[in-house]
Amino acid sequence: MQIQLAIDRLSIQEGIEIAEKARKHADWIEVGTSLIKEYGMESVRRFKEAFPEKVILADMKTMDNAIYEMNLCFQAGADAATVMGAAPFATVEQCMAAADKAGKKLVIDLLGTDEEEKKKLYTLENAILCFHISKDQQEHGKPEQLVIHKPAGLQQKTAAAGGISMETLDEIAAYSPDILIIGSAITKAEDPEQAAAAFAEKIKQKERI
Amino acid sequence: MQIQLAIDRLSIQEGIEIAEKARKHADWIEVGTSLIKEYGMESVRRFKEAFPEKVILADMKTMDNAIYEMNLCFQAGADAATVMGAAPFATVEQCMAAADKAGKKLVIDLLGTDEEEKKKLYTLENAILCFHISKDQQEHGKPEQLVIHKPAGLQQKTAAAGGISMETLDEIAAYSPDILIIGSAITKAEDPEQAAAAFAEKIKQKERI
Repeated sequence: MQIQLAIDRLSIQEGIEIAEKARKHADWIEVGTSLIKEYGMESVRRFKEAFPEKVILADMKTMDNAIYEMNLCFQAGADAATVMGAAPFATVEQCMAAADKAGKKLVIDLLGTDEEEKKKLYTLENAILCFHISKDQQEHGKPEQLVIHKPAGLQQKTAAAGGISMETLDEIAAYSPDILIIGSAITKAEDPEQAAAAFAEKIKQKERI
Repeated sequence: MQIQLAIDRLSIQEGIEIAEKARKHADWIEVGTSLIKEYGMESVRRFKEAFPEKVILADMKTMDNAIYEMNLCFQAGADAATVMGAAPFATVEQCMAAADKAGKKLVIDLLGTDEEEKKKLYTLENAILCFHISKDQQEHGKPEQLVIHKPAGLQQKTAAAGGISMETLDEIAAYSPDILIIGSAITKAEDPEQAAAAFAEKIKQKERI
């Protein structure tokens, strides 16, 4: 399991400073949607400059205009980008094609998708599938549990996002996602370095068993 | 019927120059998702400065982080913002509350929503409902026709978007949406001023009948 550190609701500079503290323990760094919408592609450029050795994921949450949006973030330095699985399938397919062509990774965010949509999305073999409970669902909706329904035989890599904390890590890790997306449990910790180290250590322990 | 001029896939400066040409004929100016993701809230600020008398819509396409994203664009000067109907309902509700609180308008983009989702969305009385065929559906998917299934008794205002041109205007106008969203048919016209004037004239004619 790899750690993706999600940077959200911060200025670019604050985000870089926090990510710097967690640098040793994060494999992926996510430039969150809130940074992209506030600062545009400058946010992606600055993170790639600061962390050239990391996989920089632009959380574009693309719903339309697939090729334009993918190229926008790839040209800004992103190594990976997200598309919403709830978008028309033509959009997801075009994002996949753009990522393949650019030699980049596509993560499909399954938020708000039903079983029928998921089935179609599972046919995109190069995609990474992200099982996701959103911030608003955590904070305002019916509290839902993050569950990874990975059908038997699914070949794609998976990611899991949604309020992952040291308390819920056991539950989520039981599904063995390839990527654990962790945001405020690190970025809002009193000591982000120590928090990231604790996640990394716990994951290492799990993988030893 | 009002005209919403959608500005997409352009620099801020190019977009402002084109909107300036169509100024007399557009009631709403949309800062497109592509501008927001490329330039961030600077795009919204610049358009509101340039067109203080227009309704400036930020096409945020919010999928999560409702209150943060709404406040982001409202503070930058947006008079209206979009949320995706395909987002978890908690997100749409929170966007509606944030818009009501700020005295702004919320447009729900119905792209990718099914009938069950639409039914829930129709309960949000202050929202404007946007019937939408996406760019990718127009360019890459099965060609779909923009149809406005407005159930009897629906009180909300409606908007229509999706490749509206002088050729398809009759078809769409038959549904009498309150807002016609027009992008490239004006922005990519050889003479955007003349194109916008032609749309405005044709709409006026229709409303006389």
